Amino acid sequence: MSTEYTTITWTVDDDGVAVLTLNRPDSLNAFDLTMARELEQVFLVDARDDEVRAVVVTGAGRAFCAGMDLSGEGNVFGLDESLLPSPEEFRAHYDEAPYHDDVRDTGGRVTLAIHALGKPVIAAINGAAVGIGATMTLAMDFRMVSTRARIGFVFGRLGIVPEACSSWFLPRLVGIQTALEWVYSADILDARTVVDGGLARSVHEPDELLPAAIALARSFVVDRSPVAVALAKKLIYRNVGVATPLEAHLSDSLAMYYTSIGDGKEGVAAFLEKRTPTFTGRASELPAVFPGD
Amino acid sequence: MSTEYTTITWTVDDDGVAVLTLNRPDSLNAFDLTMARELEQVFLVDARDDEVRAVVVTGAGRAFCAGMDLSGEGNVFGLDESLLPSPEEFRAHYDEAPYHDDVRDTGGRVTLAIHALGKPVIAAINGAAVGIGATMTLAMDFRMVSTRARIGFVFGRLGIVPEACSSWFLPRLVGIQTALEWVYSADILDARTVVDGGLARSVHEPDELLPAAIALARSFVVDRSPVAVALAKKLIYRNVGVATPLEAHLSDSLAMYYTSIGDGKEGVAAFLEKRTPTFTGRASELPAVFPGD
Amino acid sequence: MSTEYTTITWTVDDDGVAVLTLNRPDSLNAFDLTMARELEQVFLVDARDDEVRAVVVTGAGRAFCAGMDLSGEGNVFGLDESLLPSPEEFRAHYDEAPYHDDVRDTGGRVTLAIHALGKPVIAAINGAAVGIGATMTLAMDFRMVSTRARIGFVFGRLGIVPEACSSWFLPRLVGIQTALEWVYSADILDARTVVDGGLARSVHEPDELLPAAIALARSFVVDRSPVAVALAKKLIYRNVGVATPLEAHLSDSLAMYYTSIGDGKEGVAAFLEKRTPTFTGRASELPAVFPGD
Repeated sequence: MSTEYTTITWTVDDDGVAVLTLNRPDSLNAFDLTMARELEQVFLVDARDDEVRAVVVTGAGRAFCAGMDLSGEGNVFGLDESLLPSPEEFRAHYDEAPYHDDVRDTGGRVTLAIHALGKPVIAAINGAAVGIGATMTLAMDFRMVSTRARIGFVFGRLGIVPEACSSWFLPRLVGIQTALEWVYSADILDARTVVDGGLARSVHEPDELLPAAIALARSFVVDRSPVAVALAKKLIYRNVGVATPLEAHLSDSLAMYYTSIGDGKEGVAAFLEKRTPTFTGRASELPAVFPGD
Repeated sequence: MSTEYTTITWTVDDDGVAVLTLNRPDSLNAFDLTMARELEQVFLVDARDDEVRAVVVTGAGRAFCAGMDLSGEGNVFGLDESLLPSPEEFRAHYDEAPYHDDVRDTGGRVTLAIHALGKPVIAAINGAAVGIGATMTLAMDFRMVSTRARIGFVFGRLGIVPEACSSWFLPRLVGIQTALEWVYSADILDARTVVDGGLARSVHEPDELLPAAIALARSFVVDRSPVAVALAKKLIYRNVGVATPLEAHLSDSLAMYYTSIGDGKEGVAAFLEKRTPTFTGRASELPAVFPGD
Repeated sequence: MSTEYTTITWTVDDDGVAVLTLNRPDSLNAFDLTMARELEQVFLVDARDDEVRAVVVTGAGRAFCAGMDLSGEGNVFGLDESLLPSPEEFRAHYDEAPYHDDVRDTGGRVTLAIHALGKPVIAAINGAAVGIGATMTLAMDFRMVSTRARIGFVFGRLGIVPEACSSWFLPRLVGIQTALEWVYSADILDARTVVDGGLARSVHEPDELLPAAIALARSFVVDRSPVAVALAKKLIYRNVGVATPLEAHLSDSLAMYYTSIGDGKEGVAAFLEKRTPTFTGRASELPAVFPGD
């Protein structure tokens, strides 16, 4: 946790609930390449520490994140235009690996890092969340919004497309019809609209948002097995993408198998003895339940 | 239908609507290995009889199913710990078959048997439905709840993961965000919460639940083609899992093709003659519309 | 735009908003093989003209489309029964191509043509939309309904199955539970039911429906990049079908890459200069972002 960050702050409380604050309030926490690198780092390294049990993400000042910082010099998207793939190279990219850095969307690097964390992640959207400020929250498990939140998938106004894997997340969260309307319209949506549309879980008074998000995070982790939480998260995100229940059956069988001889033994014993369980499993040491794990 | 069951009862009325009752009321219909075997049997054999047109599942007494019976001796999950696969064996499991009995989740065997039945299946959740008592209903087509229903995906409190293919069904039924909250929280949810969340179709007074479920089942099968019902069910569950509409096009083309020269001929003739159709197709003799059928 | 159509009309206004009217009012715009061919043609040819930016589909007279025209002579489904595939041929169909004309559902040919159009498509459902009249709207991006709309997935009453790729679209639009109920019941649903169920975006007074649909279409295209709209539509429909966010990452990276050096340059410049952008990209010249593009 000793990493020095310049665009974000990171704190962890005694229950393991971390608060990650986007912290460029003078520019409405606009996303630049430094923030991208720091977010990737904090989710891939700091948040994986076993002391961290859940993460709440919010913004300093009156915004959550006003989107890509377009005020800077040079290529705001972080892409090297000389590397534009030819059609042949494009096909080779697909065949060989989806990791070629020369065509990787910066926002997607961040959301994949968020997505890969096997712990509850909650967006506490305190104000404007626009562009990458909106799409980065889609990879978080929950979106809680202040009455002052304003969310916009505004890419269309700039002649660009929604990024950061948002075309995977958004239609699964709000349905295809609503996803298309929010993307085509590129409008700024208020708190009520995103709750009614299914994007946000709940709306809160501004002063009550962060405490509510932290309380929700705490409720998910106190007296719980970090291994069971991590595997449950992985099962849901992976098996919502497989074709049939039969395919889900092997991974959940394996996850049940491993937990039933691990923290599940303590869990059942504590239940039968009517006491609080003491789990010893570590999220940093998960069993393999999917190919490639 | 002559099978003798000890943990369930099974009746079929003149319209082909079967009522399957979980029947261990002294233990709140807790799920044990005998019940697992009997449920697998009833869905794979009895319910496939052409005389059966739809199935309603409910619980005897005040509960639907209080979950895995943890009061028994030995390994409550039905797993042989000595068979825990090594990483190499794990990968081989995936490569060879998802059917290795030594690592198969018992609840998943039951939900796959339910899922494979090409007839409408309705859960009439009369009281507590917890753990496998909740997840087994996800493989049913509809969930109707009594005002007294209480549903809990409580696995996290025991240090284990949601099973029974629930990570395939639950996020598709209620969305990823709600699925994660119910699984992380492991809370007991009341009837209103599960209706508002999209899990249950409707809420009923306790005395009116089972009659309403039977009436709904009857409305789906009287004067209908069992072949058309079975194929429509298969098309929806399979094509919600394929990547593109084009992939769905061949299976629904084939299903339309077969029904249009089968029960569809009688259906169209009856429509034009303004009379009730008399369908002769049998659900036990379905055409192949997907590879592997 | 010089094509002569007999079952539909097609007009395009100065903003590029096309109105396609199903125009057999004496038979409630019933769908026959001529209409099928004309719909396929208009979506594959006329609507792809770069002058067309969005399409609104409605019905002449009091119906939207009363379904397959069952009044005609011969095989109403357009299938040649002598071509029913044997089980071996069936498997070969799957292995070789999903395009064999002898078993292709006519409605699916139409919905695949609609689905392939990279422009916003809005159904303005002014009255009865039954059978193929209902399923053809599923491939459109939005469904807006008049208070007089009546929608029915009535296939089950005829002994046939839902077609036109509806088993791909419907459960994604309304969830598996509601999709199964509407298909099993084969009931006629009123405007309120389809809005509450998530199928339709909004309900309107009869006189206000078409103007509202045209206004929505216009809001999606004026001062927007046709390339960005087309790619956003493709990303959402394709990536809702891929297994993981990582798979979505390459296609959205490529789409962002191409737009950021195309219309995105003008979009960002206009934003920074606080002026209206002038996009020059053409939807008829999209970059490849998925294999097979």
